[in-house]
Amino acid sequence: MTESALYDLLSERQVPVAPYKSFGFKEKPSVDFFPVALKIESPKVVHKSEFGAVKLNITSNEQLAAAKEEIIKNVESRGVKLDDSDRFIATKMLRGEELYFGMVNDAVFGKTILFGKGGVLLELYKDVSYISLEADRAEIERAIRSAKISKLLDNFRGLGFSIDIAIDFAEKIQNFIKTNPTVSEMDLNPVLLTDDGLVAVDARVLFEDKGARTTRRKRHDFFDNKKVAVIGASSDPSKVGYAIAKNALSFKGEAYFVNAKGGELFGKTLYKSVPDLPSDVDTAVISIPAKFILQTIEELARKNVKNVLVISAGFKEVGDLDGEQKLIDLVNKYNLNMIGPNCLGYYKGDGDLNLTFGSNNVLCGDIAVVSQSGAVLAALMDKAFQNKIGFSHIVSVGNMADLDFGDLVEMLNNEPSCKSISLYVEGMNDGRAFLAAARKSKKPIYIFKTGKSEESKAAAFSHTGNLSGNYKMFKKLLESAGCTLLNNIEALIFRPPLSAVKNALIVTNAGGPASILTDYIVKRGKHIYKLTEDNIKALDAILPFNWPRANPVDIIGDAMSDRYEKTLEIVQDFEGVDLIYVVVTPQFMTDGDKIAELLLKKWNKPVIPIMVGGHDLQKGIDLLRANGILSFDTLKAATDLL
Amino acid sequence: MTESALYDLLSERQVPVAPYKSFGFKEKPSVDFFPVALKIESPKVVHKSEFGAVKLNITSNEQLAAAKEEIIKNVESRGVKLDDSDRFIATKMLRGEELYFGMVNDAVFGKTILFGKGGVLLELYKDVSYISLEADRAEIERAIRSAKISKLLDNFRGLGFSIDIAIDFAEKIQNFIKTNPTVSEMDLNPVLLTDDGLVAVDARVLFEDKGARTTRRKRHDFFDNKKVAVIGASSDPSKVGYAIAKNALSFKGEAYFVNAKGGELFGKTLYKSVPDLPSDVDTAVISIPAKFILQTIEELARKNVKNVLVISAGFKEVGDLDGEQKLIDLVNKYNLNMIGPNCLGYYKGDGDLNLTFGSNNVLCGDIAVVSQSGAVLAALMDKAFQNKIGFSHIVSVGNMADLDFGDLVEMLNNEPSCKSISLYVEGMNDGRAFLAAARKSKKPIYIFKTGKSEESKAAAFSHTGNLSGNYKMFKKLLESAGCTLLNNIEALIFRPPLSAVKNALIVTNAGGPASILTDYIVKRGKHIYKLTEDNIKALDAILPFNWPRANPVDIIGDAMSDRYEKTLEIVQDFEGVDLIYVVVTPQFMTDGDKIAELLLKKWNKPVIPIMVGGHDLQKGIDLLRANGILSFDTLKAATDLL
Repeated sequence: MTESALYDLLSERQVPVAPYKSFGFKEKPSVDFFPVALKIESPKVVHKSEFGAVKLNITSNEQLAAAKEEIIKNVESRGVKLDDSDRFIATKMLRGEELYFGMVNDAVFGKTILFGKGGVLLELYKDVSYISLEADRAEIERAIRSAKISKLLDNFRGLGFSIDIAIDFAEKIQNFIKTNPTVSEMDLNPVLLTDDGLVAVDARVLFEDKGARTTRRKRHDFFDNKKVAVIGASSDPSKVGYAIAKNALSFKGEAYFVNAKGGELFGKTLYKSVPDLPSDVDTAVISIPAKFILQTIEELARKNVKNVLVISAGFKEVGDLDGEQKLIDLVNKYNLNMIGPNCLGYYKGDGDLNLTFGSNNVLCGDIAVVSQSGAVLAALMDKAFQNKIGFSHIVSVGNMADLDFGDLVEMLNNEPSCKSISLYVEGMNDGRAFLAAARKSKKPIYIFKTGKSEESKAAAFSHTGNLSGNYKMFKKLLESAGCTLLNNIEALIFRPPLSAVKNALIVTNAGGPASILTDYIVKRGKHIYKLTEDNIKALDAILPFNWPRANPVDIIGDAMSDRYEKTLEIVQDFEGVDLIYVVVTPQFMTDGDKIAELLLKKWNKPVIPIMVGGHDLQKGIDLLRANGILSFDTLKAATDLL
Repeated sequence: MTESALYDLLSERQVPVAPYKSFGFKEKPSVDFFPVALKIESPKVVHKSEFGAVKLNITSNEQLAAAKEEIIKNVESRGVKLDDSDRFIATKMLRGEELYFGMVNDAVFGKTILFGKGGVLLELYKDVSYISLEADRAEIERAIRSAKISKLLDNFRGLGFSIDIAIDFAEKIQNFIKTNPTVSEMDLNPVLLTDDGLVAVDARVLFEDKGARTTRRKRHDFFDNKKVAVIGASSDPSKVGYAIAKNALSFKGEAYFVNAKGGELFGKTLYKSVPDLPSDVDTAVISIPAKFILQTIEELARKNVKNVLVISAGFKEVGDLDGEQKLIDLVNKYNLNMIGPNCLGYYKGDGDLNLTFGSNNVLCGDIAVVSQSGAVLAALMDKAFQNKIGFSHIVSVGNMADLDFGDLVEMLNNEPSCKSISLYVEGMNDGRAFLAAARKSKKPIYIFKTGKSEESKAAAFSHTGNLSGNYKMFKKLLESAGCTLLNNIEALIFRPPLSAVKNALIVTNAGGPASILTDYIVKRGKHIYKLTEDNIKALDAILPFNWPRANPVDIIGDAMSDRYEKTLEIVQDFEGVDLIYVVVTPQFMTDGDKIAELLLKKWNKPVIPIMVGGHDLQKGIDLLRANGILSFDTLKAATDLL
């Protein structure tokens, strides 16, 4: 497509382009906008500049005519014969900051618009943001603001521009792409920020005919269970099927066990086959060798089972793509919900339903966790139990051959026991469906994503076989859709109480570590609470004369537990403080054990102890851990959760 | 100073400026370079554009004359009366990418040149680097390359520019500033990158007469000690003077104790006063009330003591700036080296000299540590002892009233036992002297700096009273001078063995955590070793068929200690691997205790265990810690040290 045809197409959808006019080979060029640039439009001339086929700064129609003749001479002198099929385009030369709009067709998110700093600096600063085709104006604005260059549009230094002009432009691009479905790639670079608004002055578009996306199936609820069955329940304690059956015993509904050998397990009948099972089983958890699974699922479907949870490995992750596809086709055929294969299982606090082969050390709570790695999930569950954190739902998605993150977020939104949703993501199948679910979610969504670097993409690929996209794109699209991306895996479970922290107060017996801690807190986007006159007066009454009268509240190196206690009694009531860090360093008089005892108490604000320095404070650290107090021995880890 | 006078001055020092010509009020303007801009040069017109006193895009001398008349009309119509003292300047209008050169006079580093992306984006992207006035071409190049925009100069996309033109320009600015010592601030924004090289097209310079800097004293060696004296040695175990005296007993030279009460301590005479001391004492460590210190130092100076170490607090840090100044004047008067006041003391491994009141749990080694916080130092020493890391020197500088980081780096360079220098810095007194010492240093310098954020600057200020500069400037200047800035305080002591790591290998029983770990390693600028065909063949012989044949080496979830052992036996000999992370997650069969036992062995490569998940692997973690094995229970902490 020629540049002028492309401009026609863009103009049709109200995408503003620089004034332009196209001329035939023999036509006399004439325009009423100056200065202009004149270029040849011919498939025979690819490198226009090198062929002398671009003329700039033309200020009159006489110059324009002369420029056309000169271009013809230049091109023909290089051995290219021009004819009536060749044309010329004159475009008005504008001045303004160079911005960028573009579109990519991403494997995970589909067609996605890019916005950022344009020109040669696009590649250098990579200051871009990502805009979903489905984003509304508010989401477009959040997206645009995530590129630094957007500040230029926000009346930067009184330049007088408004961010609305970029939102308008993005909406026009959305419309252009939706109404031209064969557009598969696009670069408007630069789009100039002129006194008259944004204007595209160069365009490159790629067209490609692609089949339509398959639409998603309508799902029934995966989490609604009255009867469950364990297929492959085993009496051998070294078998996974034993652990699942044991965990399933706590279920408040009915749990049935199936094993071809028959007999009894934990005082319950072992049904010899699926057809023997009672009717109306909602969910079957399957832990049998991979080769028997297809047949078993057929039998389950015929018994009207709605959900299957395939624990067994032996599919995509060991290279059997064919086997996994058969599994997908089967659950599609019978409209089943499937979790797995190759997963740890699923837990629902409400009803005490534990269909995992992991530890039964799980507390009921209000956080839902969905994880694409069983090992990461096991570590999180372990950490949670240690810190008395409970879950409403735990789902190990394994190979994620059927239900994916978007489905689960939708379903978790219908679960009253779930208050927030935490996801450990390696890769997504359908990013667009996930964005749609995230936009509608009434519950906050926290995400830790791995596969950020090229090298770990390789690691993730060999692991679950899912393709990880570009992390920056993932992060920005999801943030614009309302999700929170985390930097630390443990923040997935510690998150909810700490997410609201705005202002922190530090009580310390040393200035240096408090200064380091302050840096880390600020780096996380949080603030150091500023003491009021009254705060200072209250602390003056109990602290040595040389305390610095500022937060961090340095209670001086000779502080012992009594001074920590008096200080905490006062600062716990400071209005505006959301979190108190208590820093203890081993100094000459420090009674670390007694300070730790003190920190076991219930205070009016969340208090996070940091015992800096391993050896001398080990007893105190151990005491805190043994009592399930969230505490740290390094400053960095203590703030990674913010 | 008018723009044209400024251009004259810059041109005199060969700083390239756009062609310009200055005209008197009644003079007929005429130039031979077009297009030009014409501006008024008059102190009566500050906001030139608003007064219509700037005319752009002038392409002939007729237009130039008309523009001059128009400017006069515009200005006078606004009520300003012009006369013969007013002038005009015509400057050639050039095109090119907008860069920036400037100069600030920093409180810590003195006059320092800035280079970066210019124009309106200077403020937006803050993409700048810092160039010391004393930097040679190699250091200038390192500095310039730390700004992203420098890539444009490196033949970016075949633009054909070379970084040398920016180095040349910076050298000319160095020369300009050195030969115009009253220049106190400067902005060349923009400096255009044209086809003819870099050209300043706008300049703003501030002049100020400032007194010369005081020159530094010549120092004798602080670390050369045969005789030391403890002033304030005490027999009361709750006193700091007791701890110091006890630690001093291990010294291989002579240690004398002074206490006004006389008597004996640890079988040694307690001298009643300084004049009673034997002669030729090199260093006196002082731990007596602040009010007696000045007199004591006078007495010590008269006994030809060379170095004093003032442990006592009660000076600047409690607000007594006057007292601290008297101390400084006194050590200047007698040409003494002073460390402190308000410090923890000093340790030198060679000779077993421990003049601190900290723990005597210190091992002799080859790392020198200098710290501006006693508490941070105590925590580091504790951690080091736990991990069997030794020190050649430990210096707690306290208020740093005399000897500062630059002096100590110079002196440590003369100490054969010191192989690397680690500094914990809150603020520096003389940044320029430090840069000079760093440039000359034959030993690697590692720095962790706090006071990075505005809020922690306040914290550091209230702590030691030292001014913290701009962190970015600090980091970039020091890096250009050859130092390494660290992101984690503990890397100061773990640094030397890990600093050489280029390629890491991961052995894991789970893919997810290995993927997270890979992200962290790559983020630290390190690489994931790529397995060779031979490596894969060797591992194929002992690993299950479905291991992913890539690094991270996932030895599959059912791995027990025997498989970890066989794997380590093989990978420890892979050429090109500098470090092995062993990730253990609690899976169904994982025998964490036995794996920990295995990791106590001596391997051919450094092996760092990461036991992910607290509760189930706690025994293993405890075993590793008890044996002084550097190990971690979170993935993040394990890579913060790289």
